[in-house]
Amino acid sequence: MLSEIIETLRKLREQKPLIHQITNYVSANDCANITLAIGASPVMAQDAREAEEMTSRADALVVNIGTLQSECVESMFLAARKAKERSIPVIFDPVGVGATQYRTETAIRFIEEIRPDIIRCNVSEAKALCKMGGEIKGVDSVASEADAGRAARRLANSSGAVVAATGKIDWIAGGGWIARIANGHPMLARVTGTGCMASALSACFASLGGASCGAAGGVLSMGIAGEIAAASLKGTEGAGTYRARLLDAIDRLDEKTLRQYANIEVEGA
Amino acid sequence: MLSEIIETLRKLREQKPLIHQITNYVSANDCANITLAIGASPVMAQDAREAEEMTSRADALVVNIGTLQSECVESMFLAARKAKERSIPVIFDPVGVGATQYRTETAIRFIEEIRPDIIRCNVSEAKALCKMGGEIKGVDSVASEADAGRAARRLANSSGAVVAATGKIDWIAGGGWIARIANGHPMLARVTGTGCMASALSACFASLGGASCGAAGGVLSMGIAGEIAAASLKGTEGAGTYRARLLDAIDRLDEKTLRQYANIEVEGA
Amino acid sequence: MLSEIIETLRKLREQKPLIHQITNYVSANDCANITLAIGASPVMAQDAREAEEMTSRADALVVNIGTLQSECVESMFLAARKAKERSIPVIFDPVGVGATQYRTETAIRFIEEIRPDIIRCNVSEAKALCKMGGEIKGVDSVASEADAGRAARRLANSSGAVVAATGKIDWIAGGGWIARIANGHPMLARVTGTGCMASALSACFASLGGASCGAAGGVLSMGIAGEIAAASLKGTEGAGTYRARLLDAIDRLDEKTLRQYANIEVEGA
Repeated sequence: MLSEIIETLRKLREQKPLIHQITNYVSANDCANITLAIGASPVMAQDAREAEEMTSRADALVVNIGTLQSECVESMFLAARKAKERSIPVIFDPVGVGATQYRTETAIRFIEEIRPDIIRCNVSEAKALCKMGGEIKGVDSVASEADAGRAARRLANSSGAVVAATGKIDWIAGGGWIARIANGHPMLARVTGTGCMASALSACFASLGGASCGAAGGVLSMGIAGEIAAASLKGTEGAGTYRARLLDAIDRLDEKTLRQYANIEVEGA
Repeated sequence: MLSEIIETLRKLREQKPLIHQITNYVSANDCANITLAIGASPVMAQDAREAEEMTSRADALVVNIGTLQSECVESMFLAARKAKERSIPVIFDPVGVGATQYRTETAIRFIEEIRPDIIRCNVSEAKALCKMGGEIKGVDSVASEADAGRAARRLANSSGAVVAATGKIDWIAGGGWIARIANGHPMLARVTGTGCMASALSACFASLGGASCGAAGGVLSMGIAGEIAAASLKGTEGAGTYRARLLDAIDRLDEKTLRQYANIEVEGA
Repeated sequence: MLSEIIETLRKLREQKPLIHQITNYVSANDCANITLAIGASPVMAQDAREAEEMTSRADALVVNIGTLQSECVESMFLAARKAKERSIPVIFDPVGVGATQYRTETAIRFIEEIRPDIIRCNVSEAKALCKMGGEIKGVDSVASEADAGRAARRLANSSGAVVAATGKIDWIAGGGWIARIANGHPMLARVTGTGCMASALSACFASLGGASCGAAGGVLSMGIAGEIAAASLKGTEGAGTYRARLLDAIDRLDEKTLRQYANIEVEGA
């Protein structure tokens, strides 16, 4: 899997795929910047009058419900249907699913109607989606990590998507296989939108490498960037500097760094 | 008051309260990040279909009219009524009140109908709200500081809220008491959203320490961060680096720093 | 032209003009911060109930269609008509024009009905607007630079605006004259919204120096900041740090820096 990710990163930087993102206004800037940093090209068009047409030019689509607005929901479905029609990957980030009925219903409807290629979420969100319980506290996960892999597997089975459930350990589950990624750093939870950014990166990798490589490549890159950024902090530097260093690390990510840091194990592939 | 703020900061980092924010898209990312940096957990849900339900899980609510959109106004009122029903603090930031009739009317209606626990504003906005005049120039204050304390006091009396009116000197006024905070730095006015961030911090402190501690703790923390960030700038560093350092300073804020920097005097408490 | 730009920068920092911006949520924060960094004051009011009234207090108006939302389009026109009535400059940034029919129609209608004073765009967008072809890939330009100057000139002639078409070389074209700016750095394309920021800066300069000085001053400042920020990167620093340094460089921009770096040639003025 690692060599596939490395090869896809190389292609990303050559081909600069266009990643259409219908996302939340809190982390939209960070998602656009991380898309550029990995080597792809972002576009964000959420009006129903152009969401579909913009998707017809894109190489992957991200749908993120972080600040769900009713006027956008139609655009999410229009864009996603166009993406499926064109067979470009749809990456779904069900931010905060389980926290309100509106989010839960929208997320479930999206998964059932669209059948996204990747679901990138945290463990609580994965549990909410496969009804294993798991307390949702706003958009942050408070689930125990013990059954995290099981949640990813169950959601992958029920949804048909490759599921990337991130937490202390990240789990990537597809039909009959699961990968365990032990990269990342606690500081990632101190910056808003690092989950959204992982979803954007997954879309970048998926656009050229397919769903499995996408889910794993996005989450692995973010985890490694989290470690590199944390190691770079000096003196009184904290979350603000860390946020900039995450983008620096993705910008500088290369084969050598991936090989040096990657802690990924695949089972049953 | 300082020991109360210190104790609340300690609790914040243990309990990670959930702070619901219906705010503007310009500084939403900074507000989420500063909420995380102080130790709380942000969530932003502005659609009328979920604003109320999200508030029922939150420990405080921020309503900020920086980029007032008519489709959000209903959500602001729904969420605020739910917050009052649940007796969690409502922090109101009347950004740019006085600049347009729509802002002024919405702000006055919000204060009258909701009775927010804290109003965090600049001195011009405080004056506009208590009809003392004061020229509004966009969202920035150009009022003289001379009668700033008086404006805070008057708005506190008329609204029943604890008022934090920030400027060169920050004034925190409640029923029968006023605090003068002489922290801060001119560079704070060179970064957008530092007022919004102070409101978010006030909500964090208020969620566990009540309105007076919330208003003072939020404004004091921001002022101290402003000083620490300014002192850290070297060579050709300017407003961009300063913005990241503000988050660093809030992330690193602790009892020792608060005691070392705090310049707060309370009268009539 | 350079001495006009220098003189306008000096006035900007004294007079702090108010720049109203109806823009996209992806780069709104960066646009507000760069407006503050150059010395002006930003305000962003996009609701139809206040867009016009806010414009009546402003010294320039930016209309940017980066994340075009149908509920905002009315506000863009209301604000722009008020700006023209008051003779304050209107700066139009037709982000991604040509990528969807909705963007193209809105942009053309805006130019025809409003007659903006400045159009700040990339070369592909300039070509799309004067129907010279040129492939649009999302919001990024992939046009060759060869006929870039020609596109700027043609769009200036057909629209009556001063056109700033940015790319490897930036071209500023007005009635009968053209300027060539050879500042900038490839890293500018690795950060989202640097075009939007150039438009915001153009509005700042235009508010006090008029359209020609505005278009040239904004683009020149951004180009120089791009060079200074790139030269400042050390070790493993990349796009994240670069983004902060852009703001630092605009914050520190002064006559000396402008004279040292400016690479601008005017023809036919």
